This record gives sequence, C-alpha cells and structure tokens, in this order.
Amino acid sequence: MNIQDPHPIKWQFSERAQGLQSSFIREILKITQRPEIISFAGGLPSPATFPVERMRAAYDKVLLDAGKVALQYGPTDGFAPLRAWIADSLSTEGTKILPEQILMVSGSQQALDLIGKVLIDEGSRVLVETPSYLGALQAFSVYRPEFASVDTDDDGLVPSSIDAVAKGARLLYALPNFQNPTGRSLSLARRRELVETCARLRLPLIEDDPYGALSYTGAPMPKMVAMHPDGVIYMGSFSKVLTPGIRLGYVCAPLPLVRRLELAKQAADLHTAQLTQMVVYEVVKDGFLDEHIPTIRALYGRQCRAMLDAMAEHFPAAVSWTKPEGGMFIWVTLPKSIDAMQLLDTAIASRVAFVPGAPFYANAGETNTLRLSFVTVPPERIREGIAILGKLIAALL
Amino acid sequence: MNIQDPHPIKWQFSERAQGLQSSFIREILKITQRPEIISFAGGLPSPATFPVERMRAAYDKVLLDAGKVALQYGPTDGFAPLRAWIADSLSTEGTKILPEQILMVSGSQQALDLIGKVLIDEGSRVLVETPSYLGALQAFSVYRPEFASVDTDDDGLVPSSIDAVAKGARLLYALPNFQNPTGRSLSLARRRELVETCARLRLPLIEDDPYGALSYTGAPMPKMVAMHPDGVIYMGSFSKVLTPGIRLGYVCAPLPLVRRLELAKQAADLHTAQLTQMVVYEVVKDGFLDEHIPTIRALYGRQCRAMLDAMAEHFPAAVSWTKPEGGMFIWVTLPKSIDAMQLLDTAIASRVAFVPGAPFYANAGETNTLRLSFVTVPPERIREGIAILGKLIAALL
Repeated sequence: MNIQDPHPIKWQFSERAQGLQSSFIREILKITQRPEIISFAGGLPSPATFPVERMRAAYDKVLLDAGKVALQYGPTDGFAPLRAWIADSLSTEGTKILPEQILMVSGSQQALDLIGKVLIDEGSRVLVETPSYLGALQAFSVYRPEFASVDTDDDGLVPSSIDAVAKGARLLYALPNFQNPTGRSLSLARRRELVETCARLRLPLIEDDPYGALSYTGAPMPKMVAMHPDGVIYMGSFSKVLTPGIRLGYVCAPLPLVRRLELAKQAADLHTAQLTQMVVYEVVKDGFLDEHIPTIRALYGRQCRAMLDAMAEHFPAAVSWTKPEGGMFIWVTLPKSIDAMQLLDTAIASRVAFVPGAPFYANAGETNTLRLSFVTVPPERIREGIAILGKLIAALL
Repeated sequence: MNIQDPHPIKWQFSERAQGLQSSFIREILKITQRPEIISFAGGLPSPATFPVERMRAAYDKVLLDAGKVALQYGPTDGFAPLRAWIADSLSTEGTKILPEQILMVSGSQQALDLIGKVLIDEGSRVLVETPSYLGALQAFSVYRPEFASVDTDDDGLVPSSIDAVAKGARLLYALPNFQNPTGRSLSLARRRELVETCARLRLPLIEDDPYGALSYTGAPMPKMVAMHPDGVIYMGSFSKVLTPGIRLGYVCAPLPLVRRLELAKQAADLHTAQLTQMVVYEVVKDGFLDEHIPTIRALYGRQCRAMLDAMAEHFPAAVSWTKPEGGMFIWVTLPKSIDAMQLLDTAIASRVAFVPGAPFYANAGETNTLRLSFVTVPPERIREGIAILGKLIAALL
C-alpha cells in the first residue's frame, strides 16, 4: 500500500511556530562559506584553538574505563562530578555556589529555550539590551513575549534606564562580557548598579557569559551571579573555551528555578549526553583550561589588534567602532546615510562578508550598524578585507 | 558586593511550566537502583548490548581524521551522510524517502518536544493510545493540549475508534511496534486501516518507532511512513539498537513540516553534536547494525521468554498479560480489586520493583495495570522476582 494522496495535508502550525524564522546569520553563513570570500560574518570560534588530541585521549580513556556507564542513559541534571567542578569554579570567597544549582544543557542555546519555556507567557515583557544576542531573541520569540529594549551607550547596558521599562517584566537578559554583537563589556560599577536595580525590582537577571574567559587584557571581571545568587541566572558554555560541536553548556540558577528548568529539560530531551560530560570533566578537571585559554586569548587578541589597526588605517573618519578587550566581535557604526544591508551586497561582490546589525535589535534596528568577527581570519586577510570594506564605505559617502 | 536579600524573588513560572512534573518512572528509578532490588521498573536498554569497543574505535578514527570539523558547530538539519543513510534505510520499493526529509535530533524525546512546539496550540486536541508512552505525554503536555484517548484492545490501537474523537485533532501519536508500555504491536491490516483513516481525516500520524528493529520472531513489520509519506511523521532512534547515552535520534517528515521542525530546533539547541553524528555514521555505514541487532534480539528474547514462563508458573489465574514478540516490555492487568501502586509498596519491601500503569494513561488511568521490563535482569533473577510478585498478588486476592 502506498497512498498517493490527491489532497495532502495542509499543515496547520501552532501560533508560536508561525513566527519561526531562520537566523539571518545562518543564512549569510551559507553564502559566505565559499573559500574566496574573506568572511568577518562568522560567529564560530577558530578551529585552530580546538584541543583535538586532548579530546581524543579523553574519549579513549572514558570509553575504556567506563564505557557502559558513559553510553547509558544518565540523570537529567547532569554528570555529578562536572556539576561540582562548575559550582566550585563559580564560587567566590563571599558566595558559595552549590552543585545542586547547576543544570547541564546541550549548549547554552538550550538554556535560553528552557528559560523562555519556564518564565515567559505569551505577551510577557522581556527586557533585552540594544542590540542583543540574536540567538536569545530567537529562542525567547518562540514563547511570544513582548520585547522591551533597555538603553545602551558606549559602555554597554545603562542600568538607570531599566526602571522606565520594568513594569511587568519577567526577566532581563544581558551579556556583560564582550557582548555579542557589540564586543562591549560592563564596568564593575555598572555591574553592581545592574544587580542592585534588578534585586530592587525583583527582576530575574540572566547573565549570559560565553566569552567572559576570553579577556585579552587581564583577569576576567567579577560575575554578577556571585553578587546576588538568589536573583541571577548564570549561563556558561564550553563552546568558546574548548569546542562548540560537542554541544555542552550549563545554567546556574536559584534552587526553585533550576528544579523547574530540569523538569523542562527532562520533557525536552531527557538529558545531555553522559559521554560528552564525562569527557569534558576528564579534560578540565586537572586545570587544563588554565593553560589552554591563554592560547585562545593570544590568538584572538592578535587578530583583534590587526583588525582594529586596519580599521584605523582604512575606514573613513565618519565611521566609528567598538574597541573590545576580549571576545570575538567588533561593532561598527556607519554614517546614518549608509544601509549596512546595501553595503553587504557590494562587499560580497568584492569577496568580503560581515553581518548587518539590524537583526540584533529586538525592536526597531539601526540599519547603519554591522558586526565583524576576527577570530577565524589570519591577520593578512584581515588587513586585505578591511581595506576593501574601507574603500566600499568611502565610495558610498 | 553580595546582596543578602531579605525579600528574594518569588519565581513566577509560565503557565506551561506550572504543570511540569517529573516523570513518575524517573522517580521510581531512583528508589529501585539499589543493588538488592530486582528491578523490572527500568526502561533502559541492557548495557551488555552496547558495542563499546566499536564506538571507541569510531571516536578515535573520526577525531583523528576530521577532528576540527567534528568539534566545530554544524548544520541544524544534521550530518549529511548520516541523513542520506537514514533516508536510504527508510526507503522502500514503492516509496523513496529523501535526505531532505530527515532532521537529526538529540534523542527522539527531542523530536516529541519539537513536534509539540510546532503543531500544538493551547487546547489543541491530541490523540494518543490507551495507554501511551509517558515521555510523549510529558513532552506534549508542555504545550497544553487536550488529550483524547483512542481505544485499544489486545491487538493495540483500534483504528475504527478514531473518527469518534478526531474532530479538531492536530495529530495522532502511535507507537506501532512493541509499544511502550504494553509491548503490543499492530497487525499489518491495522496499520493499513490506521494510515487510511488518518489520510482520510487529513490527520498527521506520528509513528514513533524506537523498538521496531527488536523483533524476536522475524522480519520487522512494514513502516507506516512508507505507506503514506505525505501524512506520516516517523521518529527513529539509535538508543535501542546502539546506545542511548549519546542522545541521537531522527525525524522523517514531509518537507513543509520538517523545515519548520528544523527552525524550532535551531532556536532550541542550534544542532545536535557533529561528533556524535559522524561517529554513528562511521559505526553504521558498512552494515554493522545487521550483525549487531540480532545479538540484542537474542538476549532480550531469552529474557522475555524467561519472564513469560515464570509468569505462567507463578501468577494467579486472575492475572493477564501481553505476550510481546519484541521490544522491552510486558504489560500486566491485575484483577480490578488490586491497586498496582499498593502492590508496588509491598513489592519494594520484598525487593522487587515495577512501574504502575496509571501514569501511562493520558486521561483516567487503569489502576490495576503495571509494566514489567525484562531487558536488564538475568533469567534467574527474573524467575526469583516474578515468583515473589506472584506470591504478593495472590496474597492481595
């Protein structure tokens, strides 16, 4: 039997699914993966930093020593020794984080989905930075919130602007370190003000921190979760300090919330692969990241410097940009008259790619902005690409 | 700074999160993992069947040959060669399945979540078997449907009972092979009737098939997706034929739906680990499952036979049960006067565990039912445990 149906199903999607859109960045990436393109569009870490041999040895050891456990179903909350290691790494002199507060997730994108699922009702107000991380906007959008944008300036999120939009808000989502897309970081004073404001408003504060360890200039800034563990939900990831393709991240949240996130995860995918968690624990438990992360910082720092130097040399005076001290991105503001989407068309024709800034805004976007990533491009190609971009911008002025 | 908050946040969960409950089975498993307990409660495959060395060799080879690709971010739809292999394995003489119809997921539980997300609005009618798979009820519940139960008899789902409950239904979820929890399979005639009924009603039919390959008595039954590829959404998994802890499954769906599921997956976790997919492809591509699956069938078949024989010997005549020809479960119906939850209390006191049947019903549950799994218990322990259960049931009569 094989029904050749003259009236096939007309798929009726849920209301939440009708708004689903592919990430604009993922679409651009498809175009820009051709080898002749100098692509500043990527958000991917450099594979040159992946400790492949170390990972290979760890997979081998875990499968040899505990293969049947590693390949069996595991607990939803995660592999206990890794959760304890993470709790310890987040604890400070003043603030003890418990292993019970840690939920392992399949990459921190999953944490965004679970947080949206558990905290957002249709029409709930959700506060985000201007601009904000596109993947978070995508994940939260599924649960149909009303986004309100919190003001930012050259120093990032402006805490004093929160009160004006806080009424009825269910959470504030912030990326305090080398933000994606702007590369901006919050000062210690702003962090304190942000935490105090959210605590006063009883507003859950999401601290998304994939890039915090990638500081080129010194010790990472204090984490906000350590300032107010009862009100801050911290999201961490192994994607930028180890490798992204294994899909491993974690959430640290107050106990009532983390238990609810765990139930949501159980319904969503039962648990994150045991083997992956055991391997990552095997890799990190003896301090490997302390040797490894400085090599990533050095590579990205060199390439960031090359890009900033080339921009200073080649970009017209009417263009401004951020000077990140870590992370993976530089944010460019063009004169108002230039539409970054239009610039992208001419740039691709000249074999250079970047991501226009507009999709990173929850509400009305600034069309004269764009994001550049320097992490996967060697310095000489960075200089070549920036020189081309500079000429194209000048021609549009 | 460390805010010691006298008025901590009172967490306001979304409406959908308020109904989240831990799987009753997962709670029972915590109790029954003590080594002195003879546990028929598990739903876990036997680790004796895990091809650990084969997996270890594949991890080694993939990381050696293509480590930097395997550890980088990957496409949301999945690793192309594995998708092509799956499409080929699902294709029949009459029905060609395209690789584009396959979406790789992080275990088939994730397929349930994505299907719920994309097809279920609050209050949507969702049709399920009586009883049905608990994980599906959990996953769909998040999206707050109204469940309607389709009648079943000793031969499983009764297609002629669908029309009566089909009005406004958004999908029908069925597990046609060695169903969890009953172990029942649909006959070929019932499959055809089910597919024809759903096609006539333009009702999407979910064919969840984790156990189909585990037939003890002969060739697997034809898949419903091959009978009506425009209307059937097929869910497959590597958990029961390879290993579950890696979290790898797949959905095969008509193109308009699979693209929407892909967008939902992108927002939920970007993609499933590349490394896992490349390793599984490395393991399966040359026909390994054709040698491996018969060894699982032989082990489970022996233990199923031991359990059925012991039940015939030790269970009172007033008790009835299914006689599965594959899969992992036997379903027991006690006399109406016995509550399986009450039996569980006395059983655990006697060092035997099982799962009461009531949680498997979407609506009012039959409290005199229970599920037994034979796959992780050796035959002599099966006989010992069944003898104890038989005595306890007799004592309650």
